[in-house]
Amino acid sequence: MRPGPAVLLTDFGTRDPFVGIVKGVILAHAPRAQLVDLGHELDPQDLRGAALALRAAVPYFPERALFVVVVDPGVGSARRILWARSRTRQFLVPDNGVLSWLTKDEAPVVWREVRNPAWYLPGGSATFHGRDRFAPVAAALLNGVSPATLGPRVHDPVRLRWPAVRETAAGLSGEILSFDRFGNAVTNLPSSRVPAGARVLHRGRSLGPLRRFYAEVPRGRSLAVAGSSGFVELSTREGDYRARTRARPGDPVHVRNPRRRR
Amino acid sequence: MRPGPAVLLTDFGTRDPFVGIVKGVILAHAPRAQLVDLGHELDPQDLRGAALALRAAVPYFPERALFVVVVDPGVGSARRILWARSRTRQFLVPDNGVLSWLTKDEAPVVWREVRNPAWYLPGGSATFHGRDRFAPVAAALLNGVSPATLGPRVHDPVRLRWPAVRETAAGLSGEILSFDRFGNAVTNLPSSRVPAGARVLHRGRSLGPLRRFYAEVPRGRSLAVAGSSGFVELSTREGDYRARTRARPGDPVHVRNPRRRR
Amino acid sequence: MRPGPAVLLTDFGTRDPFVGIVKGVILAHAPRAQLVDLGHELDPQDLRGAALALRAAVPYFPERALFVVVVDPGVGSARRILWARSRTRQFLVPDNGVLSWLTKDEAPVVWREVRNPAWYLPGGSATFHGRDRFAPVAAALLNGVSPATLGPRVHDPVRLRWPAVRETAAGLSGEILSFDRFGNAVTNLPSSRVPAGARVLHRGRSLGPLRRFYAEVPRGRSLAVAGSSGFVELSTREGDYRARTRARPGDPVHVRNPRRRR
Repeated sequence: MRPGPAVLLTDFGTRDPFVGIVKGVILAHAPRAQLVDLGHELDPQDLRGAALALRAAVPYFPERALFVVVVDPGVGSARRILWARSRTRQFLVPDNGVLSWLTKDEAPVVWREVRNPAWYLPGGSATFHGRDRFAPVAAALLNGVSPATLGPRVHDPVRLRWPAVRETAAGLSGEILSFDRFGNAVTNLPSSRVPAGARVLHRGRSLGPLRRFYAEVPRGRSLAVAGSSGFVELSTREGDYRARTRARPGDPVHVRNPRRRR
Repeated sequence: MRPGPAVLLTDFGTRDPFVGIVKGVILAHAPRAQLVDLGHELDPQDLRGAALALRAAVPYFPERALFVVVVDPGVGSARRILWARSRTRQFLVPDNGVLSWLTKDEAPVVWREVRNPAWYLPGGSATFHGRDRFAPVAAALLNGVSPATLGPRVHDPVRLRWPAVRETAAGLSGEILSFDRFGNAVTNLPSSRVPAGARVLHRGRSLGPLRRFYAEVPRGRSLAVAGSSGFVELSTREGDYRARTRARPGDPVHVRNPRRRR
Repeated sequence: MRPGPAVLLTDFGTRDPFVGIVKGVILAHAPRAQLVDLGHELDPQDLRGAALALRAAVPYFPERALFVVVVDPGVGSARRILWARSRTRQFLVPDNGVLSWLTKDEAPVVWREVRNPAWYLPGGSATFHGRDRFAPVAAALLNGVSPATLGPRVHDPVRLRWPAVRETAAGLSGEILSFDRFGNAVTNLPSSRVPAGARVLHRGRSLGPLRRFYAEVPRGRSLAVAGSSGFVELSTREGDYRARTRARPGDPVHVRNPRRRR
C-alpha cells in the first residue's frame, strides 16, 4: 500500500522559498501527494527539538504517514540519508539520531541507507538535499516504489541520548529539555512517576503539586502541570514561564516526595 | 451534506508541533479531509484578535466550511466546547465568545454543547483539547456525523462585547481594536459612517480625510484608509503606523465632521 | 489543460487572516483547487526578495503550476494586474517586475492585462486586491477559463534591473542581493564563474576558496559556498553570517583570481 500523507518537518523556516520548493518537487513527481506541515520553525539544526516534536506527533498521524525530516547539520558531508519503518509508519531522515526519542511503539524496526541515485534530481547541489534527494525520494515512495530499491539495510543508525531521570533519597531529579512557543518548559520527568502529594522544584523554588490543568491556579501564578505528551511541564498561567524565570535547557528539576508520617 | 473544508484558527504558533498534531488527528480519522489554515500566530489567548479574524474571513470561505477555533484560555476548566451553525457554515469553538463579532449574515443560529465523548481520543490530556476533542469531533463532522449527536442545544453562549461607537457633537468617537502584521491599526469605526470631508484624528493629530487607497498620499505619510473589512484603518504608506506612533489597542480615534457654512 | 496547483507567494505574513481569506476565495470558486504556499513572510513589499524566490522556486514546481504573487506596493493605484505564461507555467502578478529574474527557460513569453471584471468579487475594496481580484481570477483559471478572456495582450511589463557583475583586472565584483532565514548572504555572483583557486572577499576579509558544502570548514568558521540556486553565498557554519558581520544588501563582494606563476 502506498504511504501518505507526507508529513514535513524541517528547520528551513517559512521566510525563504525552501519549504515551498521541497513541496514543488514532491508534487512535480507525485501530483496527488497529500502534504502536511509538522513544522518548519525549529531553531536551525535543533536535533533535540526535532526529536521531541516527532515523539509527540508521530502517534497521532495516519498509520500510512511518511515523515520527511530535514534537520540536517551535516548536509553535504558524508552523513547518510536513511529510510526507516516502524510498525506502520515510514520515515526519511538524515542519519543524526532524530528518530531516537520516538516512543517504544513507534520506534523504527527496519532501516535502510538511501544510496540509489535513480530518483535524485539531476545536477543537484551539495547544500540542498531537501530539494535534490529527500523530496524526489519521498515522491518515489508515495508513488509506490519499494523501499528495498533505495539501498541496503542498516543496523547502526546514529542515536541521540535521552537524559536519564535519577532517583534520589528525596524523590526524582530530571531536567528541562526544551520550551514551547508559550514559554512552557518541557522536562524529561514522566508525570506518571510523580506521586500524589509530591512537590516539583526548580531553582530552589516550589511549584507545588503536579496539576492537571492551568486553571487550577490563579492567573499569573506558576505551576507544574502534567503536559500533553506525558511529561511534567513548568508553566505560568496566561504567562511565559521561560521569560519569567530565565529558565534554560538543561536546568535541573526535582520532584520531592511527601514526608511519611511516623 | 458533509461539511468541508476544515478551516483552522488557533493561537498555537507554528514553532511547536501542535498544529501538525491537530491535523494528524483529523486526517487519521477523516483521511480525505481538506484542511486550510486561517492562522496560528494570534497572540496567545487573544480572543479579540480571533473574533476579528473570523469576522473578516468567514464570509469568503466555501459555504460548507467547518471552522475549528482553538483559542482557549479556559482549557481544562469547566468551560464548554460548542458546535454552532450559521445559515450555511459550521463552527467548533470553546465557549468564550469568539464568534460574537461575526457579521449579521454569518451569526450562528443554532448552538450545541459538545458533550458526547464518543469521538474524544481515549486517555486524553486536560491541557490539549485541540488534539483530544476538537480534532476528532471535527473529523466526525467531516465524516457526516450528525451534529445532534454531539450534545444538547444551548441558548446561552458566552458573548464578547463589541466596543460601541459614540456619536458626539463634533462627529464620532471609536477606538483601535487591534493591529495587523504591517502595523496598520484597525478601528471599530465603520467607513460607511464617515461623511465626505470629515477628518480622522488620533492622539490629537489629524490624518486627513478618509482615503480609498494608500497611493493617495506620498511614501512615508500617515493616513486613514477605508480598510478591506469595512472599518477605518490608520496606516503609514510603506511604513509601520504602530511603531511610528506607539499606538495601542483601546486608543480613542475621532471623526470630526466638516463645519457647515453659515 | 487546466492549470494547477496554485502556488501562493505574498508579503501578507501569517499572523493576520489575509492568506487564509485568499485561499477561502479560491476554494469557494474552485473547490478542488490544490494550494501550495511558496511563502508569505517576505518583508513587506520586498520585490527583490519575491523575484529571487520565484527564480529559485519556479523550475521545481509541476509544469502546470499557476503562481499567484501578491507583493504589491501599488495596490489601489493604477498599476496593472498581469497574467503571464512561460513555456508551460502560468503567473498572476502585479505589474511591478516581480517576474524579471526568472531564468531564461522560465521567462514569460506571453503577457496579458487582467482587466475583465467578470470574475472580480462584487463590491471589492481598493486595498485588498489579493482577495477581490487575484483570488477569484486564479480560481477562474483553475476552472479552465481561457486566459484570452482576462484582457488584452501586453508588451511592456515593468522590469526589475538585475545588478550587473563587473569583470575587473583582479577578478569579479558583485554584491549581496538578500539574506535567507539562517543569515546566509545570497550574492549575484554565479558560482560557475568563480575559477578554481580564486578567493572570495567581503569587507576586505578573505572567505577562502569557494566551497561545495558547509562541513568543509570547522563549526563557527565563515566561508563562501556554492549556493543551491547557482550563486555564491556567504555563510558561517552553524552560525549567522549576517549577524556576525553586520552585512547588508548591496555590500560589494569580490572574487580575486589566483596569481599565475611566472
